[in-house]
Amino acid sequence: MVIYLDNAATSYPKPPQVARAMAEYMLQVGAPINRSAYGPAQEAAQVTLRLRERLARFLGFPYKPSHVILTPGCTAAINQILFGYLRPGDHCLVSAMEHNAVMRPLTYLAQTRGVTFDRIPCDETGLLDPFAIGKLVKPNTRLAVIAHGSNVSGVIQDAEAIGAILADYGVPFALDAAQTAGETPVDFDRFQLSALAVPGHKSLMGPAGTGALLVSPDFARELQPIVLGGTGSEAHSEIQPAFLPDRFEPGTPNLPGFYGLDSALSYLEAIGIEAIRAHDQLLCRHFVHEVSFLRGVRLVGPTNLNQRLGVFSLDFIGRDNDEMGQRLERQFGILTRCGLHCAPNAHKTLGTYPQGTVRMSTSYFTTIEELDAALEAIDILSTLK
Amino acid sequence: MVIYLDNAATSYPKPPQVARAMAEYMLQVGAPINRSAYGPAQEAAQVTLRLRERLARFLGFPYKPSHVILTPGCTAAINQILFGYLRPGDHCLVSAMEHNAVMRPLTYLAQTRGVTFDRIPCDETGLLDPFAIGKLVKPNTRLAVIAHGSNVSGVIQDAEAIGAILADYGVPFALDAAQTAGETPVDFDRFQLSALAVPGHKSLMGPAGTGALLVSPDFARELQPIVLGGTGSEAHSEIQPAFLPDRFEPGTPNLPGFYGLDSALSYLEAIGIEAIRAHDQLLCRHFVHEVSFLRGVRLVGPTNLNQRLGVFSLDFIGRDNDEMGQRLERQFGILTRCGLHCAPNAHKTLGTYPQGTVRMSTSYFTTIEELDAALEAIDILSTLK
Repeated sequence: MVIYLDNAATSYPKPPQVARAMAEYMLQVGAPINRSAYGPAQEAAQVTLRLRERLARFLGFPYKPSHVILTPGCTAAINQILFGYLRPGDHCLVSAMEHNAVMRPLTYLAQTRGVTFDRIPCDETGLLDPFAIGKLVKPNTRLAVIAHGSNVSGVIQDAEAIGAILADYGVPFALDAAQTAGETPVDFDRFQLSALAVPGHKSLMGPAGTGALLVSPDFARELQPIVLGGTGSEAHSEIQPAFLPDRFEPGTPNLPGFYGLDSALSYLEAIGIEAIRAHDQLLCRHFVHEVSFLRGVRLVGPTNLNQRLGVFSLDFIGRDNDEMGQRLERQFGILTRCGLHCAPNAHKTLGTYPQGTVRMSTSYFTTIEELDAALEAIDILSTLK
Repeated sequence: MVIYLDNAATSYPKPPQVARAMAEYMLQVGAPINRSAYGPAQEAAQVTLRLRERLARFLGFPYKPSHVILTPGCTAAINQILFGYLRPGDHCLVSAMEHNAVMRPLTYLAQTRGVTFDRIPCDETGLLDPFAIGKLVKPNTRLAVIAHGSNVSGVIQDAEAIGAILADYGVPFALDAAQTAGETPVDFDRFQLSALAVPGHKSLMGPAGTGALLVSPDFARELQPIVLGGTGSEAHSEIQPAFLPDRFEPGTPNLPGFYGLDSALSYLEAIGIEAIRAHDQLLCRHFVHEVSFLRGVRLVGPTNLNQRLGVFSLDFIGRDNDEMGQRLERQFGILTRCGLHCAPNAHKTLGTYPQGTVRMSTSYFTTIEELDAALEAIDILSTLK
């Protein structure tokens, strides 16, 4: 028996129709989009448009589906934001909990292109105080990029409050919803976002190799593409088209992935984000409560259920966390992820640097019984001599 | 009955095991790579390494598989070359037959970053004269990027001769093998390449959303990544790792795509590139010969079979080519692609700008019978009043 608790890396299993939709594309459609006009190409184009519409609906996006840019993943979407928007002399705000998908491109921009940045402090659970923002905003602050949910502590930031404050300062707000999209409500409009990056293969339940970047028209006008090429449109011109989504979608895209993600979203829409979030809360309540009785292990992150996701980072007291992770797999068949989770500053914020943690992360398909098996294994390992 | 002749856009059908391998990953593996250490993650890592090894073997790559960088497609690979290598003040050579995947990023670099470029002239079939290179090389020429096979005329450039001349001038040679990889031999070593960009979803028979960039160690040292982020390696650091492939592969990659492409390559390896090329030559010989008897249509590109691929661009004399393409589908079920094929300068070189052509492109699965049906349809349409 294997218990998969690495859903924060990529969700597994997926709804069964996802692999079916991909196979349908591969075996029965097979055509490109935008470049050719025949029947199967038009079918693929329709599914792609439907995918944009589903993403817009699911993520509270109030603009046209053309402004839902499909990407190879969330990292690509974040890079498009940072490299495409920030200019020399710009100042950028991030939280102290960012993933390297934000910090590595931003550090590179700081080293090579005269961009500066500050980290908005977070408390020891990873929670950001929206009122700390004001002290860090400068006249040249042109963007804030913030992780909605932490892939380390599971904390969920109050994106609505952050968005309201950033709007007061006139700073465009880009949200990295890598951990939240599909698990808890993400609302472009309510959060007053300018840009939203999501992966397709985490809680949105699509295949790896998919993601999206949703941009407001105002933000899009300031955004330069970072990858250019053939789009099937304006083929007479060696200049990238100005209109969306083509401007940001050169080359043949991941069409089997689009079919898979479209199918996954139809599954999520049928369940509804409230029911998904309720399941997540049920798992959180159970795990946070039960783990509090175990003496040899410390759960990182918020205990307030409203402030957290099913991402449980554990510090085995006086033990080697990497070894604990390996033993969880070998002895109990429990698949977790150990280490720093590509978010070194998050671990520094949480006091778990450099030792890292053992992370257990859930999905809509995770059961209470699986968490009980994990809790029992944690108890055995943490109390063994 | 549908006859798919748009394989230069994306190949269809694929070997049946490709969709099976993708479904296997989706349903039975599902794990990420590099980030987690448990069994399924290690299996996915092994398939990914095997894919790099297969690509290296299949493309005559003499370096380590770590230097086979997996990308979301050929356009992404070409952008990585151009944006990652060219610096302000550099001069770049291209052929007069390039696709917009090369021309749009290069034009952007010329407009914004002080890069200059020249086009090496090609004859009216699209063939480049290697000896024309010498006249265009300047002291600041730092790169040549050349399409190996044309997606418009089907011409194959003499990459070995071009490589020898560029080597004499000390100019690194980057080959865009979008149309040739998997259809005719591509040999990194023999062509004296520094970089090679290939799509996974054309003649390599893998799924859309895959591609690769193969780089020599010398070239890699000069190459800056254009997308940065978490790699699962050096997770303590907010600086991109220096080692390959991680340096150029941030974020969760298209793992179902990797499984599909790996499976496709195992199919191609079993057939052998010589047999695949022989089939391509058989189709070319038949089509070029038969179409020469049709009076209402002109075939663009070389008639010398050694210089061409199964990419047949047709100009219907005195007709609207777009309308001819539509009628080929509606009346005969033949799927083609009309227009400028994202390569305006190629059409200018061939004398088919701005009207474009109707392109029929074959694959290893295309039969003589399908070409005969296409030839009959062309004959009917081109001679109708």
